Amino acid sequence: MINLLNDYNMTAHPRVIEALARAGGRRFPGYGEDEESEAARAAVRLLSGCPDADVHFLAGGTQTNLTSIGAFLRPHEAVVSPLSSHIYVHETGAIEAVGHKIINFPSENGKATAASVRETVSSHDNEHMVKPRLLFVSQATELGTAYSREEMKALRQVADEYGLYLYVDGARLANTLASDACDLSLEDLAALADAFYIGGTKNGLLFGEALVITNPSLKEDFRFLMKQRGALLAKGFLLGIQFRALLEDGLWLELARRSNGMAARLKEGLRALGVPIFVENDTNQVFLYAPSDMMPLLEERVLFERWGLEEEAGVPIRFVTSWATTEDEVAAAIGLF
Amino acid sequence: MINLLNDYNMTAHPRVIEALARAGGRRFPGYGEDEESEAARAAVRLLSGCPDADVHFLAGGTQTNLTSIGAFLRPHEAVVSPLSSHIYVHETGAIEAVGHKIINFPSENGKATAASVRETVSSHDNEHMVKPRLLFVSQATELGTAYSREEMKALRQVADEYGLYLYVDGARLANTLASDACDLSLEDLAALADAFYIGGTKNGLLFGEALVITNPSLKEDFRFLMKQRGALLAKGFLLGIQFRALLEDGLWLELARRSNGMAARLKEGLRALGVPIFVENDTNQVFLYAPSDMMPLLEERVLFERWGLEEEAGVPIRFVTSWATTEDEVAAAIGLF
Amino acid sequence: MINLLNDYNMTAHPRVIEALARAGGRRFPGYGEDEESEAARAAVRLLSGCPDADVHFLAGGTQTNLTSIGAFLRPHEAVVSPLSSHIYVHETGAIEAVGHKIINFPSENGKATAASVRETVSSHDNEHMVKPRLLFVSQATELGTAYSREEMKALRQVADEYGLYLYVDGARLANTLASDACDLSLEDLAALADAFYIGGTKNGLLFGEALVITNPSLKEDFRFLMKQRGALLAKGFLLGIQFRALLEDGLWLELARRSNGMAARLKEGLRALGVPIFVENDTNQVFLYAPSDMMPLLEERVLFERWGLEEEAGVPIRFVTSWATTEDEVAAAIGLF
Amino acid sequence: MINLLNDYNMTAHPRVIEALARAGGRRFPGYGEDEESEAARAAVRLLSGCPDADVHFLAGGTQTNLTSIGAFLRPHEAVVSPLSSHIYVHETGAIEAVGHKIINFPSENGKATAASVRETVSSHDNEHMVKPRLLFVSQATELGTAYSREEMKALRQVADEYGLYLYVDGARLANTLASDACDLSLEDLAALADAFYIGGTKNGLLFGEALVITNPSLKEDFRFLMKQRGALLAKGFLLGIQFRALLEDGLWLELARRSNGMAARLKEGLRALGVPIFVENDTNQVFLYAPSDMMPLLEERVLFERWGLEEEAGVPIRFVTSWATTEDEVAAAIGLF
Repeated sequence: MINLLNDYNMTAHPRVIEALARAGGRRFPGYGEDEESEAARAAVRLLSGCPDADVHFLAGGTQTNLTSIGAFLRPHEAVVSPLSSHIYVHETGAIEAVGHKIINFPSENGKATAASVRETVSSHDNEHMVKPRLLFVSQATELGTAYSREEMKALRQVADEYGLYLYVDGARLANTLASDACDLSLEDLAALADAFYIGGTKNGLLFGEALVITNPSLKEDFRFLMKQRGALLAKGFLLGIQFRALLEDGLWLELARRSNGMAARLKEGLRALGVPIFVENDTNQVFLYAPSDMMPLLEERVLFERWGLEEEAGVPIRFVTSWATTEDEVAAAIGLF
Repeated sequence: MINLLNDYNMTAHPRVIEALARAGGRRFPGYGEDEESEAARAAVRLLSGCPDADVHFLAGGTQTNLTSIGAFLRPHEAVVSPLSSHIYVHETGAIEAVGHKIINFPSENGKATAASVRETVSSHDNEHMVKPRLLFVSQATELGTAYSREEMKALRQVADEYGLYLYVDGARLANTLASDACDLSLEDLAALADAFYIGGTKNGLLFGEALVITNPSLKEDFRFLMKQRGALLAKGFLLGIQFRALLEDGLWLELARRSNGMAARLKEGLRALGVPIFVENDTNQVFLYAPSDMMPLLEERVLFERWGLEEEAGVPIRFVTSWATTEDEVAAAIGLF
Repeated sequence: MINLLNDYNMTAHPRVIEALARAGGRRFPGYGEDEESEAARAAVRLLSGCPDADVHFLAGGTQTNLTSIGAFLRPHEAVVSPLSSHIYVHETGAIEAVGHKIINFPSENGKATAASVRETVSSHDNEHMVKPRLLFVSQATELGTAYSREEMKALRQVADEYGLYLYVDGARLANTLASDACDLSLEDLAALADAFYIGGTKNGLLFGEALVITNPSLKEDFRFLMKQRGALLAKGFLLGIQFRALLEDGLWLELARRSNGMAARLKEGLRALGVPIFVENDTNQVFLYAPSDMMPLLEERVLFERWGLEEEAGVPIRFVTSWATTEDEVAAAIGLF
Repeated sequence: MINLLNDYNMTAHPRVIEALARAGGRRFPGYGEDEESEAARAAVRLLSGCPDADVHFLAGGTQTNLTSIGAFLRPHEAVVSPLSSHIYVHETGAIEAVGHKIINFPSENGKATAASVRETVSSHDNEHMVKPRLLFVSQATELGTAYSREEMKALRQVADEYGLYLYVDGARLANTLASDACDLSLEDLAALADAFYIGGTKNGLLFGEALVITNPSLKEDFRFLMKQRGALLAKGFLLGIQFRALLEDGLWLELARRSNGMAARLKEGLRALGVPIFVENDTNQVFLYAPSDMMPLLEERVLFERWGLEEEAGVPIRFVTSWATTEDEVAAAIGLF
């Protein structure tokens, strides 16, 4: 079966597995206070151009989001985020469960605009409403689109205007950094955001996200919050070992480039056959309309996700590629149309 | 100055003050375990036609909503509510602060429709999303409109279809019961809702709301939750005394009828002068467009609330009447147009 | 029946009731933004010698504690408090429900000592434990004892040593200020504590506590937190009117003096009869051992609280006096022994 | 350096690493809905003698505890637990952060007794106190001791008497099952507890705990809670693969037996030298008094934990063995005394 369901369906890239295997006989301090984690943190700081950033490794995206946001905000402070955000829709109320409202606004292709943020935030002006305090965006977005340098700068500006922290969910950050179409570099992001994370789970690790906190006022006592939320892994060295392997020799960007490339190939092939693509993006997700009568065949041969109810143009579906997607799979998928 | 700002700008109706004064020399058990509270609870049960209902008196609306919803739901369960709901917009994230997401949907004149509830709820179908569990509506709504018997029955039906509790915020419930235009009686409401409250703060009390829980599965240990949220008043007898006075001889409906009548008179007077009214309702709120150039005069002479940005028809504003609004005030307000 | 059960069993002192009655015809802004509240806040600031303090009126003690502590602490920060504290034992987990652990330590006659605080806090030294951040004490304590100026200074010192806020629950603060035996003045307290409240519910008001925040870093956005916890009373002016009446001409201290005096008379009378008193204090609570065979008679004639299981010295019980306790009641109670 | 610091200082047992390596080329469904996880769940059910139990795999102990307890309790319900419990002391208030008080009582050698539970719970009898609802114990305890069948039965009985759930933290459960001195079998435990977990992190896995819910009333919607707390691992199959490898051919008991054996050898060796052992247990922790003047040497050669302040008998310290502890290490450690 062709697997275009998601980018987290295999254990890990062989180089990551090997790194873990090599560490087999060693003894490590717990809770991330080991040398491997320290080296991985140093690598993240170096790549981000932020020698003073605090770097923490957590196990997954929802955990990273709820631990961070719960640490950064006072109880009456709220998150502002596009309606399509993962935290708003697909994390089972994790942010509300740590006490914070998410104020949503409509997005364009998954992206927040400075104007929509401004409109949303400015209507909150007294103590009968929550106080907007953190702007949450994803790079790439849920629709695989990416903020350009100019767009992210505009968000930083509106954040400053209203006293908001800018937090970037980077579950698929590598895919945007590896894309020629996106001019926002890791250094740019680190300079603009107050905190962000570099996703590992969807880019070749067994599991793991690297949270980077650049705003000094958000750093204090973060490990307490990790422990309290169940996010301080006893064998934290596992995260250090994995991230070290992933960041070495640019493996993480190579994997992202590979998965982007497979998506591009898939998109081109489908487009050549006249299949409508309904989101333009240059990362590893392809959003297309499948003809209604093809659905039984697709569901028999391909693992993928439906993306809403049937429309005139067809059934909206999503194909996701990963570092492990093969050319044969892509060709086979195109061949079905 | 003409005060049309809200319905909670005076101490209390004289009969309520007198009842408190009469109780001056007496000693009472604490925390609502006194005879006055018991008598008031019995009166609520009788009027609701629910001899088995649990009745609790709390100090205010936000407190009642957060205590109830926090008591009724498990952590992953969510509230479904119109976008214009007080809990969604104007309670500073009180529901989220006790851990629950509010899923909103657009409303018509402040009302939920069965169709919008169905659409909203049915898209929540797996553990990556919260589980809709409580339908929150207000009677009257934020726009002073009221659900008819048929409309509330339809909500009950959709609630049953999806396993939702039906909770009705009745901060201005008396205004709908006192309105000839609304055919939903208190007995109807009590039979249809799982829990609701009868507002006292906006209808002549110093403060106080009477929460009625009719669904037996929601009754257990409610007083623990009241205490935990700071909602178990030490001198609970104050609430019993007040509610007893309010419910005696139909005073509560008389007050609501009076405030509705003042609103009707105001509306008719304005309409006769061609002032556009933008929400049709028969309770104690009047929503109108004021000519832009009248605003300085209005702001000088009347206390009221703006209801959004200027539109072509004028500046949307809200006038609220109460049991204490006088005919002179109404005439004076009309006289300004 | 002689009522020595508690100090919140009557509506309010006549001067408070009269003040409310006098306000009957007036219209007020909501949520405490009225002139009466402003005047009451000014009076509190003046009496406290803190012209810059923020003063907020809330409805009850549990509400004040949970709103304050929830506002002051980050999620991993904890309260340190004597085991006998009201918040630890008798507020149904209100503090834990807003997310904070209470670390307790044994107390002597209800009081924290600097040594016990130091021992408790110093064992918390890493991110696997909560971070002690707020020292909670009561003046008077649950046992009616009061911290002297020296004792409170010592607590301030240990608080500074470990970076703790010092919060004082003053449900019965007036009783200590009115006691000749206690040399800690209101100005002293205001200078030593980061925040404290002056109780009104147990000293002649219908309800109400005046929270005083002297530490500037704790002031920000407090009204947001009040609204979120359901603690921002719509008719906030009720609190302003009451506190103004209570603080006028020293009424609050007069009432406290009266209730202390009744307790002293009761204690002397009992002591003269050889009844063992098991807590020494100079406020309005009397803790005594009643002979086991007297219990049926006592329970028939007096309302009071048992204070634990029978001991050799007798059954420990508590008598509480209030401003409304009469000499006849006291004499009658003594007469039973 | 001799590592006797803890039992989670290496990656994983080779058979676990191999199982992960073998899975390298395969594609899996996410979130634990894969065949490996299903097989591992079946193995847990079989070993527990509970064909109907729900089994969930989570990443760590704190995460398992907070997700479970937060799922099982209503907001006013509390945990009852020995003072020495990990959740009370060493999880940074994780349980309080999800809203629940932990009522503690003194323990004997880390164990709860039915009498102490009864005394603690029976004093909670009204809505001004939390409602005890879940008895939390650990097998093995923090001191490495284990409940016998009779002791656990007595806890079940007192739990039934007071309507408490019985929850068993089994971070080191295998060490008790592998000990000849403990007669409580896994089937016994599963029959007596409402929920418990089998620890993997401290017994040879990279990470992972297997939560077993036997009480049907606690099963509903548990995966929602996992997702909400960030505990639903995207690559859930990693947990399935690991647990399958661990449970196969009794590897888990073999590893526990090995670590128990090393502790026994260590204890005997020390005892033969007259070193005082201050907790008697038959699992993998050794608690001893080290002579004060030996501490510099010990700290230079061994990684271990201090267990309190110096006493007359010496400095209390803890040595922990694991499946990877070697005979040489044990001999070397003994050789230092």
